[in-house]
Parts: sequence; structure tokens; C-alpha cells
Amino acid sequence: MPKLHWEDFQPGAVAVYGPRLVTREEIVAFAAEFDPQPMHLDEAAASATMLGGLGASGWHTCCLLMRMIADGFVLDSSSMGSPGIEEVRWLKPLRPDTHMRVRATVLESRPSKSRPDMGLTKFRYEVLDEAGSVLTTMVTTAMLGRRAPEARP
Amino acid sequence: MPKLHWEDFQPGAVAVYGPRLVTREEIVAFAAEFDPQPMHLDEAAASATMLGGLGASGWHTCCLLMRMIADGFVLDSSSMGSPGIEEVRWLKPLRPDTHMRVRATVLESRPSKSRPDMGLTKFRYEVLDEAGSVLTTMVTTAMLGRRAPEARP
Repeated sequence: MPKLHWEDFQPGAVAVYGPRLVTREEIVAFAAEFDPQPMHLDEAAASATMLGGLGASGWHTCCLLMRMIADGFVLDSSSMGSPGIEEVRWLKPLRPDTHMRVRATVLESRPSKSRPDMGLTKFRYEVLDEAGSVLTTMVTTAMLGRRAPEARP
Repeated sequence: MPKLHWEDFQPGAVAVYGPRLVTREEIVAFAAEFDPQPMHLDEAAASATMLGGLGASGWHTCCLLMRMIADGFVLDSSSMGSPGIEEVRWLKPLRPDTHMRVRATVLESRPSKSRPDMGLTKFRYEVLDEAGSVLTTMVTTAMLGRRAPEARP
């Protein structure tokens, strides 16, 4: 049974997940499969781009964020998925050997109008490096199961 | 030298890339690495979820889209990257054995105010199945190099 339900995510709540190390090998392997642009594959080519050196595909950053929040809380929750993404901003490159963390902030919470067993929770996620710089931000809404009526306070 | 520059993407232009087959093995392998929720890993568990059966992680769909547009035009272009994503909507599940296609539409085009060698192009991407159903939509802005002034018409 999931431990966390829609009611457990109140606006203003903040949690931090990680750290997780991202290596050069992971960055290059992901890029070779999904985003084979030179700035994600090769240091020499990357140094001539706007990244100024090898950096992860922005999609890789998003996928690592997903895995970190899955391990952080999603897999312990009544998550029913998400309708999509409201915004991603790739602010700074994710470099090899960064120990990433993710800061999750609950922005909004509302019950579903159509499904009484479900609530909607809007999160802002920030990917941070060791120094606390924000590399990427994402805003997305999660669909979460509500506690059974008899279990509600 | 890149063949395609900012000037080559005019609002209203449409292109279709693919098809690309996505297999059950790919869906499960991606999910195991980045999004290990039961609906992306196991048919029996997935049948009890809102997906009603195994479906790819929405992030996997985005990454496959990225690869298809990389092969479709990005790697032949003066792409300088992207500041982020304006919207993703996961409308219908991407099922195993789908032959995906991607339809790209140029929504807007404007020169950069700060960089005379760069232009900004807003695209809408739609992931389609064989029947033409739209599974996922994405809106994002690309930074593209402009043709050198002496090469402009």
C-alpha cells in the first residue's frame, strides 16, 4: 500500500533528494542513444558550442530528475501519473562528475473535479549542483490518489 | 557545414519524421533506468493503472522524439540548443510495437535581439501512431544559427 497520498503534499512544502553522481560515461551514453549532438558527446566539439564544454542533454537531466523523485517519493506514493509538463528551463549545463540534488516544492494542490478519488498537485523541481546553483527547473502537475474517505482526518 | 539555418524554418512549415518502431524491451529498459513505475515495467501491474496496460514513460516518448528530430533535421542544422520546453502533453500512451512518427510544425520565428548570428524558432511537435492519433505534443523553442550576411538572399 502506498504511504503517501495527495493529502500529504501541502503547498509550500519543500523536500530535497539526492545526491546522485552523474558521470561522463552516462552523459555520453545517453546522448549517443537519444540526443547525439556534438555538445553532449565530445569535449573538443563541445568547447566550441554555447555550452563551453561537455554537458548532458537537457533530456538526460530531466530523466535523472525523474529517477531521483521516483526513488525520493513517487514510488512510495499513490501516484497515478501526470498529464504533462508545464515548463522546463535549462539554465546551466549539467557537467560530468556533478553530484546532483533535486529540490521539490509544492506549488498548488486541488481535488479533481471529475474523480473524487484523485487530487492534483503542482510541483516545481530544481536540479542543483554541489554549490547550490540551479541548473534546471521544471513545473509539472501530478495526479495522486486521495486517502479513502474513512481514512481522512 | 550545416545545411539548414534559421532562415530555412518559416512559420507554417510542416515536416514528418519516422517511422520508428518502439519495442516492449526498449520501453521496459528505459523505465528500469529512469522511471521505474509499475505502469511502465509490467503488463499485469500496468493493466490496473490509468494507462490500462503497458505504456512507455512519458520521458521515454520525449527522448525518442528528440532522437527522431535529431536524425530528421537537427544534426543537419546550425542548432545551438534550446532554452527549455514550453509544454508537453501526454495525451495517450505509447504502446509496445508502435511505429512512431513525429510531425513538426514551425509556429513562430524571430531574430535574436542580443545575438545577430542567431534566430529563435518555436516548434510544435506531435508524436503520432500508425493510425495518425496524436499521442504526445510538445512546444519548444530552438536557437538556430543564421546564414552569414553575405549568404543571405
